This record gives sequence, structure tokens and C-alpha cells, in this order.
Amino acid sequence: MTTHDRFLSRAAEKMQQSAIRKMGTVIASGRDIISFAPGYPAPETFAWHDFQTIAADLLGSQDGGILQYGPTRGYRPLLEALGSIQRTRGIPAAPEELLVTTGSQQGLDLVARVLIDPGDVILVELPTYVGAISAFRNVQAAMVGVPQEGDGIDLAALDDTFERLRAEGRRIKFLYVVPNFQNPTGLLIGIDKRGRLLEWADRRDTLIVEDDPYRELYFEDSAGEADVRPLKADDRTGRVIYLSSFSKTLAPGYRVAWIAAPAALAAKLEMAKQAEDLLTGSLDQRMIHEACRRGVLERQLPLLRRHYAHKRDVMEQALRREVGGLVTWPTPKGGFFLWLTLPRGVDADRMLARAIEEGVVYVAGEAFYVNGEGQNTLRLSFSAPSDERIEAGVSRLARALRAEVAARATGAAAGAPGAS
Amino acid sequence: MTTHDRFLSRAAEKMQQSAIRKMGTVIASGRDIISFAPGYPAPETFAWHDFQTIAADLLGSQDGGILQYGPTRGYRPLLEALGSIQRTRGIPAAPEELLVTTGSQQGLDLVARVLIDPGDVILVELPTYVGAISAFRNVQAAMVGVPQEGDGIDLAALDDTFERLRAEGRRIKFLYVVPNFQNPTGLLIGIDKRGRLLEWADRRDTLIVEDDPYRELYFEDSAGEADVRPLKADDRTGRVIYLSSFSKTLAPGYRVAWIAAPAALAAKLEMAKQAEDLLTGSLDQRMIHEACRRGVLERQLPLLRRHYAHKRDVMEQALRREVGGLVTWPTPKGGFFLWLTLPRGVDADRMLARAIEEGVVYVAGEAFYVNGEGQNTLRLSFSAPSDERIEAGVSRLARALRAEVAARATGAAAGAPGAS
Repeated sequence: MTTHDRFLSRAAEKMQQSAIRKMGTVIASGRDIISFAPGYPAPETFAWHDFQTIAADLLGSQDGGILQYGPTRGYRPLLEALGSIQRTRGIPAAPEELLVTTGSQQGLDLVARVLIDPGDVILVELPTYVGAISAFRNVQAAMVGVPQEGDGIDLAALDDTFERLRAEGRRIKFLYVVPNFQNPTGLLIGIDKRGRLLEWADRRDTLIVEDDPYRELYFEDSAGEADVRPLKADDRTGRVIYLSSFSKTLAPGYRVAWIAAPAALAAKLEMAKQAEDLLTGSLDQRMIHEACRRGVLERQLPLLRRHYAHKRDVMEQALRREVGGLVTWPTPKGGFFLWLTLPRGVDADRMLARAIEEGVVYVAGEAFYVNGEGQNTLRLSFSAPSDERIEAGVSRLARALRAEVAARATGAAAGAPGAS
Repeated sequence: MTTHDRFLSRAAEKMQQSAIRKMGTVIASGRDIISFAPGYPAPETFAWHDFQTIAADLLGSQDGGILQYGPTRGYRPLLEALGSIQRTRGIPAAPEELLVTTGSQQGLDLVARVLIDPGDVILVELPTYVGAISAFRNVQAAMVGVPQEGDGIDLAALDDTFERLRAEGRRIKFLYVVPNFQNPTGLLIGIDKRGRLLEWADRRDTLIVEDDPYRELYFEDSAGEADVRPLKADDRTGRVIYLSSFSKTLAPGYRVAWIAAPAALAAKLEMAKQAEDLLTGSLDQRMIHEACRRGVLERQLPLLRRHYAHKRDVMEQALRREVGGLVTWPTPKGGFFLWLTLPRGVDADRMLARAIEEGVVYVAGEAFYVNGEGQNTLRLSFSAPSDERIEAGVSRLARALRAEVAARATGAAAGAPGAS
């Protein structure tokens, strides 16, 4: 047989299996594993009955367009619905500024292809979304991380990093941020900081890619509409490329998301999409459009906010009870994720074998860091499991963690005599 | 406002609007235009009733997986169904050799990303599928064309081209071919030639990318199963990457297609897809899987063969009647397309304005040529319009062509005195 390595592109040589997707293999092993790994929405919240009615109406109409090829830009009435959604977020957008994408993952990939040449620098938060890391790595970007504070990205560190890179003659293409309930930390960029971030982008003449899949899922006890105002809403100079999605609100299986960008960039993104998959699924686009038009989305949002706030509560209570003294985390004000910091020296990736043995999985934090840090961090998703599974899963995690800490203490003690 | 040109990647600078997709704008103008431009399947052939039942059953089951994220590789039962389809084509494939893609366009894009570095040479047929040209151009491939004969690619020219390029020190990554009812010419590679093509790839130690969306649509008066045997079926050394799709048989709006490739390559293609769109639509995959499982696909195929053979007949008869003496074409033995050669010196792209005025559109042939040839060729799709529209459209085309020929004669006559 032919070996194929010598035919691979340089990009392919560097491609890696996603840390989250790898967990899928463990879960599929058939054992009773409680998964806090992937950021799956809760399927019991999906509007099954509405979708069934919509599908029957659409397919019953035998309107050819429902199953036919269509414009790359997107189904026109859906683009108009997106325009309305954008307006409620403070970002009016004409159809020529919008592009429907096959999930926000495609949005990130298109942005990467249209903006990045090999070696270009992309600034990202430490930690940041692994899907963005993959998309940027696949076009051979050089990613440089900027630390976060309690209210999001550290602006002083950002500017220092920018200046240092520019002094080195590097070409910096954009800053990638997830301002609302960031994946993986759950952090929210403070509203003041958003304004200063835009000023920074203007002063430094750079672009911002704003990834906003979770903004509708704020928890009403701690955040509201005012807190999730997109950067793009106050972008007067066309510096912000905005991505959002229906995956976390209606359902991810439809793969319907969108980009709002200055028209000239949107046109290039559309050309990239033409060659990448021609168009986003026609039935999927119609299903989503009808769910918007019939008020299904509107009706879902308050239910989802309560549903996920409750899951967060269940997970926090279980963590406090089981490992309160051992670990820390910022309380999520929205979204799907809880970001744990373990005792110094405990390696979340090494602990994973023990966790799997106990019957629980998570994503070790290192995968979210572009600078190799984060060994003692991990991401827990509270979105999909039931209350009971969250509680049982946290107990299993606690057992794994205590065992790991004990083993470390013993190992350190055992190792002590030999240490010089 | 910020101008964005200086932020674009080199790939983006070269991206172009697809010639076929541009036609969409003309069609959407609201005038009565008969379109022979895009290769759309006939929506009246879609199994509407079956799809309605399947959607009701799936969404009624409230099985979370139907609308949830799922494995990048594809929905496991669909992968198994693909294995069965592959077997009927003489290409047994294990699940680890298969990957579900978001349309075959994504398949081409993934292949391009995994195999091509900027400047690598890809050999293509003259003319070839524009979607492949776009996908390869977007990773900055250098495409080199090889002429076709009546039974497909010219093997002597292929080998000469290969040798010349190798002598120049170029890195040749693969040959891209559409052996069955090629887009745009409708040609079929002869069965003997397929064997020799595989021998050539072995001798020259190169890969073949075999794009096979039309193979089920052979016209029983002139072709059969034996004529459409994939190259991949006789590939003993793992040189062939095979792409196929449900877009032309079940419906393109689902965006479900697949790649069969040696397992090591399939794994890399999966990693590329992870970062490109995470997964192909879950509901779409289930719909297609059920359509396979319930025998809908099987039932459709003979109907489709007859339907499209009839459309071809209608178009050929109209062409013979209207412009028989002026143009030539190879009779398609399957697929969606008829490839016209106009009188020498008539430029199909220049003629398009006149055609639009008459109320008909096609794709000017030049877009399918990577070497700038093909000015006097054009592609007609007979797949979607009704019999009446095909006849009316050909009449309109004939008027445009006669006017163009007359104008040329006058122009030539007028120009003659000045010619030296």
C-alpha cells in the first residue's frame, strides 16, 4: 500500500484531533461515563413539537427550494430574520453584511481563510475556545495569548503584547474574543472594558473577531441584556467581525449560524464559502427561519435561561459540597461552562485516566491555552446532564481528585529522599 | 470606515465569484429567464412524501441525537449504509475509510486542504468542474489541464504533461477526474482507459481524486452498471480518493455526501473537517440514512434515470431542430449536462448578454478551463427545466446564436478592409 504521509500538506501535518472530540471516543466506549466534556445543549429543551409541525408544513408544501441548492449567502427570508435579531442586539445589519454559515465553526474557518496567511499573528484570550484554535492553526497562524482578569481580557497585557510583537516586525491580523460567557471560562467582559477594547482596536488599527454563541443564555440572577451588549454594537469604524449561532438556542444539529461583517469582507467570506460547501443546508435554514418567524425562538429563550441557571446551581452546590476547599472557579453568569482551577501541581490531563476509571470525563484545560499553560485547570459543562447525573458526576470527579492529590502527596514524599 | 483589503490573506485576494453562482443573480432579477446554468436536480423527482413521513417519525421520536452535535466522522448507521452503497459499486469500505461531508464541495475542499501546499501542481481535465477549480485555487494550487478525447482524458497527453512538469522540478500532488458523465462535458471515461489510468498512477507514483456524483444517473439506452465502475474499485494500492454524494439522487438541500479514502488519509480529512464545520447536519444525516434504510433511494434510481434521459432527449431534439448545423455536442450517456461547441470565433461569454436579452442563460465554457481556452463552448443543464421550458429555452438560445453569428459576419466584413 501507498503511504500517504509524503503527500500531505504542511497544514495537514500539523492537524490534531480536538481534545473535546477525543472525549467522544471515551463516551462511546459503552461504559457508564458521566460526561462534562462537550458543550452540548440539553436535548429536553429542544422545541420538538414545533419542529415536527414546521417540518410537516415545509415538506408538505413541496416547494422545491426546501430541498434544492440555494444562494451561498443564505436563504433570503432567513437573512432578513437575522437582520431583525441583529437589531435587537444593537447591531443593525443589511443583508449584504450578513452570511449564513454551517455552524459558527465554519464562520471561524472562513474568517481564518480570508484573513490569515501562514505566520500571521492572531491574539487570543488565555484560555480560549479550542475550535477557534483549530481553525486558526489550520491556516498556520501564530497564536499569541493574552491573560484574562475577572472582567475579561487584560487590556494592559494586550497592549504590551501588541507592542512587543509589532516591535518584532510581526504582522498582527486580529484579536479573537468571546465576550459573553466565554468558552471555556464562563467569564463576561465588563461593559466598560468593551468600550476600551474598541478604542484600543481603533488606536492600534487592528480587527476584532467577536464570537458570541452564548449571549442569549444569561442567568437572570446575575446578568441581563445590558451586560451582553456586543462589541459590534458600538463599532463605528467597521473593525468588528461578529459571529453568532442558533446552535445553543434552537439546536446544533441544524448547523445554522451567521457572520455579520463589513460588506466588503462579507463578500469575500461568501466566496470562501462557495468553495467550502456551496451553501448551508436548505431544509435546515428553512426550519430555523420558521422557528424565528413563528416565535419559537422568542418563547424558548426565557426557558433556556432558567434551565441552564438551574444546572449551574446544581453543579456549584455539588462542587462546594464535594471539593469546596480544594478547587476554585468563577461563578458563571451565563452559558454552559464552569472553569475549575485545581490545587497547584495537580495535572488535569494526567488525572483524566483516574476520572475515567471513576466514570466521569471533562476537558483538561491545557487544550484551551495556546502557550502550554493551564495544566491545573479543567472545563466542566453543566448544560446537558440531568441534575442527578451532575451530582453523581461531581462525586466521581471528587473521588478522582482526592486520589490524585493523595497520590501526589505520597509521590512527593516518596521522591523526597532522592531529591538533591 | 476601515478599508479591509490590507487585512486579506493572499488566498482571499485571488478568490473569485463562481461563474455558475453569478448566473443566480441574473435569474433572481425577476425577468422570465429560462436557466440552463446551474446543475440543479428536478425538484418534482424528490421523494416528498417519504421525506415528510421520515421527518415526522424522526422528530416525533424526540431522540436527542437527531438535533444534537454528533461525531465528525458521521452518524454511525449512515456510515454503515455508505459501506453498503460502496459495496454495490465494487468498493468495499470500512467505517474508518469513510467520512461524511457537507456536500461533495466540502469533500473537494478537505482534500485540497489536506494534500495541497501553495504552488503544488494538480492535474485536471480540460474542461473540468468549476467547484473543484475554486477549492484547489483557494489553497493556491497550480492547476495544469490535460485534454480529453471521446472516451475521456488523453492518456498520452497526461503522461507527457506529467513528465514535463517533473522535469521542471514541480511537485505534482494528484490528478482530479470526474469519470462518469463529467461536469461539464457529460463524457464517460472508457472502461479500458480506467484500467490504464490506474496503471499510470502506480507507475508515476501519484494519487487520483475521483469525483463521482453522477454515476447512478446513467441512461439505460447507452450506458449501464459496467460502464460506470469506479476507478477506486480496482485500486489495489490505495491511490484513489473517492467522492460521491446524495445531492443528485435524493436532494442537494441536505448537503450529505461522502469520501472513501485510505484510513490514514480519512483520519486527516476528519481532522480538517473538525475545524471546518465540526459535523454535517444531524437531521440531514438521519433523513438520508432513513431514505436509504427504507428503500427510498433504491426506488428512486430507475425513475431518475428515465426522467433525466427523457430531458436529454428533449434538449437534443430541440438543438438538432434549431441549431443542428451550427453547433456540435457529444451525446450525454448520463448526468445533467450537455456540452456545446459553437462555431469557431463565437465567444460564449460575449454572447451571454444577447442570450439574457432573449431570456435564456447558460454557463460560458471558459470558466471550466484552467488554461484560458474554451471561448466557443458552453454548458447547458437539462436536468431541472420542464420539457416546454427546455424547448423554449433552446429556441431563445438559437436566436441569440444566430444573431451573434450574423453580427460576427457583419463585423468581420466591416472589419475586413482594415485588416492587413
